[in-house]
Amino acid sequence: MRIALVGMGVVGQSLLKLIAENRSELVARYGLGVRVVYAADRSGAVHRATGFSPDELLEAKKRGGVTKVADAKAFNNIFDALEDAEADVLVDATPTNIVDGEPSYSIIRKAILNGMDVVTVSKGALALYMPALKEMANRRRILLKFSGTVGGGMPVLAFARECSKADRVEQIEGILNGTTNYILTRMEEEGLEFKQALAEAQLLGYAEADPTLDIKGLDTACKITILANEVLGMKATINDVKVTGIDTLSSQEVNRARMTGKAMRLIGYAGKDVLEVSPREIDAKDPLAVKMAMNAVRFKTTYSGSHVISGKGAGGVETATAVIRDIISIKMYRSEAGEKV
Amino acid sequence: MRIALVGMGVVGQSLLKLIAENRSELVARYGLGVRVVYAADRSGAVHRATGFSPDELLEAKKRGGVTKVADAKAFNNIFDALEDAEADVLVDATPTNIVDGEPSYSIIRKAILNGMDVVTVSKGALALYMPALKEMANRRRILLKFSGTVGGGMPVLAFARECSKADRVEQIEGILNGTTNYILTRMEEEGLEFKQALAEAQLLGYAEADPTLDIKGLDTACKITILANEVLGMKATINDVKVTGIDTLSSQEVNRARMTGKAMRLIGYAGKDVLEVSPREIDAKDPLAVKMAMNAVRFKTTYSGSHVISGKGAGGVETATAVIRDIISIKMYRSEAGEKV
Repeated sequence: MRIALVGMGVVGQSLLKLIAENRSELVARYGLGVRVVYAADRSGAVHRATGFSPDELLEAKKRGGVTKVADAKAFNNIFDALEDAEADVLVDATPTNIVDGEPSYSIIRKAILNGMDVVTVSKGALALYMPALKEMANRRRILLKFSGTVGGGMPVLAFARECSKADRVEQIEGILNGTTNYILTRMEEEGLEFKQALAEAQLLGYAEADPTLDIKGLDTACKITILANEVLGMKATINDVKVTGIDTLSSQEVNRARMTGKAMRLIGYAGKDVLEVSPREIDAKDPLAVKMAMNAVRFKTTYSGSHVISGKGAGGVETATAVIRDIISIKMYRSEAGEKV
Repeated sequence: MRIALVGMGVVGQSLLKLIAENRSELVARYGLGVRVVYAADRSGAVHRATGFSPDELLEAKKRGGVTKVADAKAFNNIFDALEDAEADVLVDATPTNIVDGEPSYSIIRKAILNGMDVVTVSKGALALYMPALKEMANRRRILLKFSGTVGGGMPVLAFARECSKADRVEQIEGILNGTTNYILTRMEEEGLEFKQALAEAQLLGYAEADPTLDIKGLDTACKITILANEVLGMKATINDVKVTGIDTLSSQEVNRARMTGKAMRLIGYAGKDVLEVSPREIDAKDPLAVKMAMNAVRFKTTYSGSHVISGKGAGGVETATAVIRDIISIKMYRSEAGEKV
């Protein structure tokens, strides 16, 4: 299966390492031979029909970018090569941009129009245009997969789809952002003010230098939008989500919750006609009330009650396993349809 | 899809109700038209090639058993009709028997030999003979499904299979029995002795009149055996599990755990060469430490950390949704293989 990889950040690099480490197992278990024929990053794009080894791309990245790779055609414009790459699957591992969804949106659109199946871990284009992108993909019989956008390595979307068979998911609520949960846990347990807890999270690598997307609740809003579309069948975008962040919470408010057996958490909620992200007091004993950088999601179903899944919701390697799961399911679907992949 | 249903207890009856309630949706979403052509319970078996309506079987059950249904060929020996039923899928909803796995074992074997795919919710035959049954089914290209044996309506097995793609589940530990968890929670929260808590659980319907399988840890042992085979690839039976129940625990022991921030729970564990069921002290804040009749399972993976899923682990309707999920996946597999179902 020929892969075009755009984005060589922590997820893109982890993906290459995972492919290298699990090459023989992927062939043995799924008949999946992965060949990366195209790679792009900030330096530009490279293409080689016979494929790049993961090591040679990782090595080139260290020396300044994928265009440093030897014996390959290099392009400044990442789209020029993509069209000719003849890849089966585009993997979009570009950073999330919720202003206009770029470059993710254009890359995904280009791939769909060129008949490539798509795996993305980037949330911006989906949060802004998910109904349109799904329709575009469906019309052209393209598979659009995005397991890695929610829950990192936890198979949240697959779990929800399984819950929806012979049953119906009616409501989703979850802690979908590890950074804010880390901050809230520290405010709760140590009585820190928001700014102190944020500084600590930045120091420890739980929060980015610009933490806006996380602390304003926008990352959670992207994820609840994706869940609402995929699991509840809503046709929504991030603009339909009522969002309140955690940056105005005081340590008093967090402590008051704690004193009454509650826990203050940033909750993403999707239910009938309601999409919301806001700090809420939930029961401290609720399985949703995970601590530190954990994520947790509850699916309320019609017949089989509420299911909660929790785990590490982010991380490069974790998210890369989600990408490979998506590639495997594309491979299985295409094989069953009798196509050569 | 023609179904042969054996067992008209709470799961069998819930399944019929679910089929009736969701008939049009199953056709619309999955192209799945369910026709129950054979049904068996303690009264015997009935067969009708054109199918029974769920209501007529439920009605007959109230009047003494499926053989009370009108206009059907009735058989005293449930196997005689099964062979001629020409069903596509056998649904085994008989009670769990861990002494010899009967009647489940003979029913499943008969179905496999007659070319029917199998869905079972009964744990005995699997716990005793799972490696052999899987081999028998594989050789004859029969699908053997058992989602409802672990976690009730929670898609535990599907979740674990998803976690195993491009990753590896290395260890499983879980609270897999709601009855014992209810008892332990009551001992913990109210200081009840085991016998008091058991009596209360029986009064409220959480424990059966004969609670042996639950309190001796045998139900948990069945489930951890099934998980070990399916998720870890072990070839194990219940005889390989070291089992300790909760019936000798004192309120002092449970309280001592509580006083030190721990929670006493009956844990099923499967890891490299180790299968064990025993009461253990786990951290009270561990997401595994669910309360009352809840279940929770942790999967420790190589790449993406630990995932915990929790929810209601039992119940007739809940387990029936698992049966329908299995029927749907059989339908999808057979359709993709180009077979008419």
